[in-house]
Amino acid sequence: MQYFTSKCKTSQFSQYIMGQESAGIVTSNGSSPPAYVTLKGMGLVNSAFKAEDLLKLRHGNLGIGHTRYSTTGISELQNCQPFVVDTLHGRIAVAHNGELVNAAALRKKVMRHGVGLSTCSDSELITQLLALTPPMEEADAPDWVARIKNLMTETPTSYSLLIMYKDVIYAVRDPYGNRPLSIGRMVPISKLHSSGVGEGDTEGWVISSESCSFQSIGAKYYREVQPGEIVQVSKYGVKSLCVVPRPEGEPPAFCIFEYVYFARPDSIFEGQMVYTVRQRCGHQLAIEAPTEADVVSTVPESATPAALGYAQESGLPYVEVLCKNRYVGRTFIQPNTRLRQLGVAKKFGALTDNFAGKRVVLIDDSIVRGNTISPIIKLLKEAGATEVHIRVASPPIRFPCYMGINIPTKEELIANKPEFTDIAGYIGATSVRYLSVQGLVAAVQGGTASFGGKELEMISPSNNGIRRLGHCTACLTGKYPVELEW
Amino acid sequence: MQYFTSKCKTSQFSQYIMGQESAGIVTSNGSSPPAYVTLKGMGLVNSAFKAEDLLKLRHGNLGIGHTRYSTTGISELQNCQPFVVDTLHGRIAVAHNGELVNAAALRKKVMRHGVGLSTCSDSELITQLLALTPPMEEADAPDWVARIKNLMTETPTSYSLLIMYKDVIYAVRDPYGNRPLSIGRMVPISKLHSSGVGEGDTEGWVISSESCSFQSIGAKYYREVQPGEIVQVSKYGVKSLCVVPRPEGEPPAFCIFEYVYFARPDSIFEGQMVYTVRQRCGHQLAIEAPTEADVVSTVPESATPAALGYAQESGLPYVEVLCKNRYVGRTFIQPNTRLRQLGVAKKFGALTDNFAGKRVVLIDDSIVRGNTISPIIKLLKEAGATEVHIRVASPPIRFPCYMGINIPTKEELIANKPEFTDIAGYIGATSVRYLSVQGLVAAVQGGTASFGGKELEMISPSNNGIRRLGHCTACLTGKYPVELEW
Amino acid sequence: MQYFTSKCKTSQFSQYIMGQESAGIVTSNGSSPPAYVTLKGMGLVNSAFKAEDLLKLRHGNLGIGHTRYSTTGISELQNCQPFVVDTLHGRIAVAHNGELVNAAALRKKVMRHGVGLSTCSDSELITQLLALTPPMEEADAPDWVARIKNLMTETPTSYSLLIMYKDVIYAVRDPYGNRPLSIGRMVPISKLHSSGVGEGDTEGWVISSESCSFQSIGAKYYREVQPGEIVQVSKYGVKSLCVVPRPEGEPPAFCIFEYVYFARPDSIFEGQMVYTVRQRCGHQLAIEAPTEADVVSTVPESATPAALGYAQESGLPYVEVLCKNRYVGRTFIQPNTRLRQLGVAKKFGALTDNFAGKRVVLIDDSIVRGNTISPIIKLLKEAGATEVHIRVASPPIRFPCYMGINIPTKEELIANKPEFTDIAGYIGATSVRYLSVQGLVAAVQGGTASFGGKELEMISPSNNGIRRLGHCTACLTGKYPVELEW
Amino acid sequence: MQYFTSKCKTSQFSQYIMGQESAGIVTSNGSSPPAYVTLKGMGLVNSAFKAEDLLKLRHGNLGIGHTRYSTTGISELQNCQPFVVDTLHGRIAVAHNGELVNAAALRKKVMRHGVGLSTCSDSELITQLLALTPPMEEADAPDWVARIKNLMTETPTSYSLLIMYKDVIYAVRDPYGNRPLSIGRMVPISKLHSSGVGEGDTEGWVISSESCSFQSIGAKYYREVQPGEIVQVSKYGVKSLCVVPRPEGEPPAFCIFEYVYFARPDSIFEGQMVYTVRQRCGHQLAIEAPTEADVVSTVPESATPAALGYAQESGLPYVEVLCKNRYVGRTFIQPNTRLRQLGVAKKFGALTDNFAGKRVVLIDDSIVRGNTISPIIKLLKEAGATEVHIRVASPPIRFPCYMGINIPTKEELIANKPEFTDIAGYIGATSVRYLSVQGLVAAVQGGTASFGGKELEMISPSNNGIRRLGHCTACLTGKYPVELEW
Repeated sequence: MQYFTSKCKTSQFSQYIMGQESAGIVTSNGSSPPAYVTLKGMGLVNSAFKAEDLLKLRHGNLGIGHTRYSTTGISELQNCQPFVVDTLHGRIAVAHNGELVNAAALRKKVMRHGVGLSTCSDSELITQLLALTPPMEEADAPDWVARIKNLMTETPTSYSLLIMYKDVIYAVRDPYGNRPLSIGRMVPISKLHSSGVGEGDTEGWVISSESCSFQSIGAKYYREVQPGEIVQVSKYGVKSLCVVPRPEGEPPAFCIFEYVYFARPDSIFEGQMVYTVRQRCGHQLAIEAPTEADVVSTVPESATPAALGYAQESGLPYVEVLCKNRYVGRTFIQPNTRLRQLGVAKKFGALTDNFAGKRVVLIDDSIVRGNTISPIIKLLKEAGATEVHIRVASPPIRFPCYMGINIPTKEELIANKPEFTDIAGYIGATSVRYLSVQGLVAAVQGGTASFGGKELEMISPSNNGIRRLGHCTACLTGKYPVELEW
Repeated sequence: MQYFTSKCKTSQFSQYIMGQESAGIVTSNGSSPPAYVTLKGMGLVNSAFKAEDLLKLRHGNLGIGHTRYSTTGISELQNCQPFVVDTLHGRIAVAHNGELVNAAALRKKVMRHGVGLSTCSDSELITQLLALTPPMEEADAPDWVARIKNLMTETPTSYSLLIMYKDVIYAVRDPYGNRPLSIGRMVPISKLHSSGVGEGDTEGWVISSESCSFQSIGAKYYREVQPGEIVQVSKYGVKSLCVVPRPEGEPPAFCIFEYVYFARPDSIFEGQMVYTVRQRCGHQLAIEAPTEADVVSTVPESATPAALGYAQESGLPYVEVLCKNRYVGRTFIQPNTRLRQLGVAKKFGALTDNFAGKRVVLIDDSIVRGNTISPIIKLLKEAGATEVHIRVASPPIRFPCYMGINIPTKEELIANKPEFTDIAGYIGATSVRYLSVQGLVAAVQGGTASFGGKELEMISPSNNGIRRLGHCTACLTGKYPVELEW
Repeated sequence: MQYFTSKCKTSQFSQYIMGQESAGIVTSNGSSPPAYVTLKGMGLVNSAFKAEDLLKLRHGNLGIGHTRYSTTGISELQNCQPFVVDTLHGRIAVAHNGELVNAAALRKKVMRHGVGLSTCSDSELITQLLALTPPMEEADAPDWVARIKNLMTETPTSYSLLIMYKDVIYAVRDPYGNRPLSIGRMVPISKLHSSGVGEGDTEGWVISSESCSFQSIGAKYYREVQPGEIVQVSKYGVKSLCVVPRPEGEPPAFCIFEYVYFARPDSIFEGQMVYTVRQRCGHQLAIEAPTEADVVSTVPESATPAALGYAQESGLPYVEVLCKNRYVGRTFIQPNTRLRQLGVAKKFGALTDNFAGKRVVLIDDSIVRGNTISPIIKLLKEAGATEVHIRVASPPIRFPCYMGINIPTKEELIANKPEFTDIAGYIGATSVRYLSVQGLVAAVQGGTASFGGKELEMISPSNNGIRRLGHCTACLTGKYPVELEW
Repeated sequence: MQYFTSKCKTSQFSQYIMGQESAGIVTSNGSSPPAYVTLKGMGLVNSAFKAEDLLKLRHGNLGIGHTRYSTTGISELQNCQPFVVDTLHGRIAVAHNGELVNAAALRKKVMRHGVGLSTCSDSELITQLLALTPPMEEADAPDWVARIKNLMTETPTSYSLLIMYKDVIYAVRDPYGNRPLSIGRMVPISKLHSSGVGEGDTEGWVISSESCSFQSIGAKYYREVQPGEIVQVSKYGVKSLCVVPRPEGEPPAFCIFEYVYFARPDSIFEGQMVYTVRQRCGHQLAIEAPTEADVVSTVPESATPAALGYAQESGLPYVEVLCKNRYVGRTFIQPNTRLRQLGVAKKFGALTDNFAGKRVVLIDDSIVRGNTISPIIKLLKEAGATEVHIRVASPPIRFPCYMGINIPTKEELIANKPEFTDIAGYIGATSVRYLSVQGLVAAVQGGTASFGGKELEMISPSNNGIRRLGHCTACLTGKYPVELEW
């Protein structure tokens, strides 16, 4: 999910959005009544939209976009976000990242009111909830902030939202802060790297669940939306309206899986760079699971920071053992048995000189089903590795996620299978060790971050102090931040 | 709009549907809860759907489809019908043909209840109205017929509807009968042309706004849905549930334009074949506007029945003067001035031998803007016609339609332009004459029809007597069947 | 095949070409050395080429195009014409319509010279033959006319050719005149219908195998290329270079099938309009095969001129009994048995009122396999026709064509099957009668033609006298114009 | 270029071929006369071919494929290889990698013989040369080996060829060995990694210009085709037929650029792995151009082996400073100035924590135009790098390649521009140093290679001794292996 508002032409928005399954963009020219333009399509942004469609976006200066990795609901165009509806107070558009833990109860509530729901997406549900309560009167002025606050009392998590109404966008993060949401600032190229931008400045703002996207469009990271916070973005700039609190004593619950796997390494969460957290996981893993071996290597490319961290901590030399085959595309005819058996060999080439006759520590970021790592080990052994020790830079995944991350069912997870008792034998490794939950939490909560040589400014020192205290580790521990069926 | 229910596999439904702008199909397996499958796409049915998608329809035996010639609303996939929603009483799907005359007031009513409307289509509006009133209670059994009756008291016209709920389809025609709706019967190929099918028989039923589609799929024409009638189609067959009456003294208002232009010539309305009505228009036109000439001809292909009627009545020989160029496709690069000037010459070839040196009466079915007929006249004159007399088999169109037919704005209609006072001079004809409104009405109301050599059975003799008394001639006379802003 | 040369921009050429299987265009700017631009694609011209590709054609004022209905060779892009090669004397482009009767022997000859042939098309063979004989010397000036004459001594038929070299196009028709080739003249729109264009005039010329295409682009029919003639088209206009004669005593052999079926009705061959010839076939058929019946009708649309001719001669009234379903597209999922049995019912609607209870004479232009007419007869009978008499406006096809027309194999032709002895019983008709070969020849050779009210000017009176004396009737009689394996 | 012959089904060939611009496959069933199947398409193999097309390849067990990075000639389908022609001795198919240095003279020779050339590709030229000399006689048995030897006397370089005729494939490398060509052996999966395969064994063989492709399809590297060698591949296995010698005293001239940039790192040339050569380049560069700095890093991913080599030799720590943005696709609307200025920022994310406040040595594999490295340096400096020293693991490119590698014109090469005198200033680096030509040659010629822990077997010890003595360094030194216009 990536949300944008800026002074630049909305025709460029499409260049700022990237995703994997479906994509939507809605722009507004901010006038009264506002003219909205909506584009939706399946596939990567580049293929979902045609050039002639994008030209239709030219006239606005405000917009929200969404790309989707389907979690709930079927992958269909009608489920594609943002969701746009006409209400008595005008048209609103809503984009949503996450998954409402009490969606079933809320759907029933909405339908009891006589509303038919045309999709199974949370986005439509949220949109109809916003329209429903409190009752609308034609005479009243619209008070969307009150409606958003009301929504936040009806559902605790998990959602990061963007709500566009005429010339305003509201950026909302649930009280537990489960899904990320960051604010960036568009600056003229001439001033792109100058310092000193204030909240009142109105050059243009962008909001995204992945802060790494800011750099791609010439924006600078500004800050995170805080858990429970409602931020208003308009031509007057960015303004924090309020923070809806969690129940007394409840810690925040930012998804720890974003650090482990989901986010791009140059993203920043809670003031630290994801790459650095992964590198610390490697250090921690070397401490928890040291190995007698000759070289340390990585399953490219996601495990590389952890592998370099492991190499540094262990003192073993870091080498590359696999190179990626850039041209492996979709296999579009039924592959025969021969090619299926070759499996991973089509995706990776073995850099034999670097490990033949040696004992290899191979770092992976996570093992979900166990069927990717197995042929890699076989490939290395056959090309001459004498031992292959697998070290995993995260704990075993054992539980489903109900908050928007697409994790296989409990039965499919390797950590829940009988074979897990002899995982090394099962995947053909000399040995296998995982990072502990405590080790992961320590790696996540231990660090500080810098950008451009300066400590990152936080919204307030007190937030800074607590911000890394609470994380959702449900998929690793089964402890969910709220009771399910809330 | 074409609706179907039958015992045959729903995977075949796509072959039964044809249209020009967008297409949708929803099927149900009739079980409880029912599994619905929805397909929507832009373009002709054949290009809108992919073969692999159609395979998904295989499992049901009940379904509704819709194809769209956009009238209200923008041409977008989200406006594509049927509209499907989840309600407290389960999922319903609605397809709609027509245009609600009081849509604006009804939208406001629905939104005042706190419902956001995600499209500008009447179909969503109808669907939400059905869900809204009376209030739903989880304990109650669903009474969709009461809801449909309630809807019919809220909006007088113009709509033919199909509403699918679990294993039942309700076919509904508005009290004025403005849009057509016919019932056909699917029979085994072996019995395809046998006689004697009764209402209780359950071999399979299809409902369509164009009766001509029945033959294409091996069904026989059964009867029309009457104005105001709600017909239930289920595995027990077709059952008339009730007829919602019009206000005291109001005649029905079936769209006369269906006879003139819109319907395929082999369609049957009110017990008569459209081709025959058009031929009668030609006879009437020959009586009203006789011509001194050598040959009568047609603008192929829609004006041919009227031209043959004119030739018969006038005694002049019928010849062909134009042949169609089958390969004229979309012009996809900006045509240069030369080709634009050539205009209609790219679409038609002149059959010179048939008219060179002769006086031609050329019959057209209607003249809307006047820019198609003009180059045809020029082409004929330059190829040797000494006179070209235009005779139009319908009256001039002067008023907009608010009931679902896409007619240009008042300003664009040739009959409202200053040039109309010398229309012959404007389009380059030797003379121009139109059929009168009274002549058209007489041609429509005068006849009887036969199919397979037998008089068509009507639902009851009394209906038969009144059925051709009232027609909507609003686009010709400005007399609308209900007051606008009803 | 359509060839063009004109003063207008070559970017427009694509709008002038239409076909069904593959299409190619080559343009030249006429400079020295000339810049050629080649476009080829599969499918109808409109889908074969993309708009951006067509822009590449903008810079020339000379070009040849080709569209293909595959006869010899597989339908592949590499077989797509025009064929362009570099020779010692520069680049030439060749387009070919027809089929060389001695292709096998010529291929061997070329290969014996050490040339590898990269396609199985006659176009490449012709191109290499032109390059091969006489031997090329760098010092010599190119003499393409001598090479073309030489080619014409090596192969008697069947070919109409267009050969482009730098700023000249040579239009060539084989000595037997088997395939058509006509010259048209592009005139400014302002003068489009003025009279008096002379051979020396250079406004722009087009050459096409279908004269009907001239009107579509604003050109006027000028004359045919004569059998054996080589015509040079350049900026100096059209110039007849020579006529290569047939062997002493041999008549010409223009394909009679072009009149019967292949050509568009507004095409002109040998000074007469195809529509008129077909109408004369109808007259002749009424004389040869009169019928006791109530109405005469047509299988739309190709048999309509013959049906009107039959009606006139017989005095029976002409009515329409079938209307075409415009939206029948490709069937893209495996149709089930039900729909396959329905067959033709999907393509035509029955106009019952016009024939129920009546005896119908149904005119068809030809019966090739007999599986199209059969379900039409069934449809008419079931809708109430008491008798259906089939009258075919051409003789039975019994023999294969080796000169470029795609006719089924001998075994597939209904006229060669045992069932032909009771063809009426086989197809379900009340009776079946064909036009005789003599009747067809008389209809073809009997008439005169007019265009724009004037007799058409012929290239010379003496040609005029003989031009309709010889026609190829090989598919009807088995008498081929040259011995096969020539 | 990748060539294959194997016992496995040819339908799988498409899975074995990968490329960037166009692709072609020709298969043969080896019978007499052989049935060939040809597929050609534009784009990556996966998009160039449709699944239904690939099914056509099923019936053969012999085939050759080609993928193209256009060097000579325009990027058009007709230039797509393999080139297939019919000759007096039957059909042959030819695929070619490289560029004939004397193509212009050879084209003239062929055309003087009366052959028209339909493409500007060397493949057609080679094919026609093979057909032309010596003259073919129908009575003679075909002697393709003599024809190939004759061809090799007419053109010295640069070509690796595959020539398929009936059930035999000839693999040919030019006498200078300029382009690579390797033989691999397909073995049953069960025996995939067993040892001991001999030349007489016939399990299946593959030939490819990139040995790394063998692993992807379950084949093992066997050996290189030697410079000047003709190898015959048939059902009897692989057989070396002869080695056509270079002129007395001339060394071989394998393209050194394959090591530097073109080949995948897991490819093997001359008995050594490309990755290892690149790592040695890094070592050599550290010796030639040491730097005072804090960290060493890479421009991912091609420069990584050199960067690790530099880090090892220099003792400086290796870190990652850039991460790739996986979703950067084609930019399909005209990017505005803002986004163009952002340039490389869209492709890379800065991993700030790893280098902020530090002096960075950034290794690149080559600098061609200088416009990619410049924005990367800017990005690093703005994110906090205090110094950015560029070290290039190859010498400056100064000369064009006439042997098949697509290098910009002399004028575009940064090393030939005035700015090169202050290259550091021009690209914004703190300092810039290149590897010397001697250093590169030493890195290439110095090593030995192992695969699976064993020294690689060479075809003969004597070849082994000389094989790394001669390389083509023309693009770096201007010394071409043969005189141009040979």
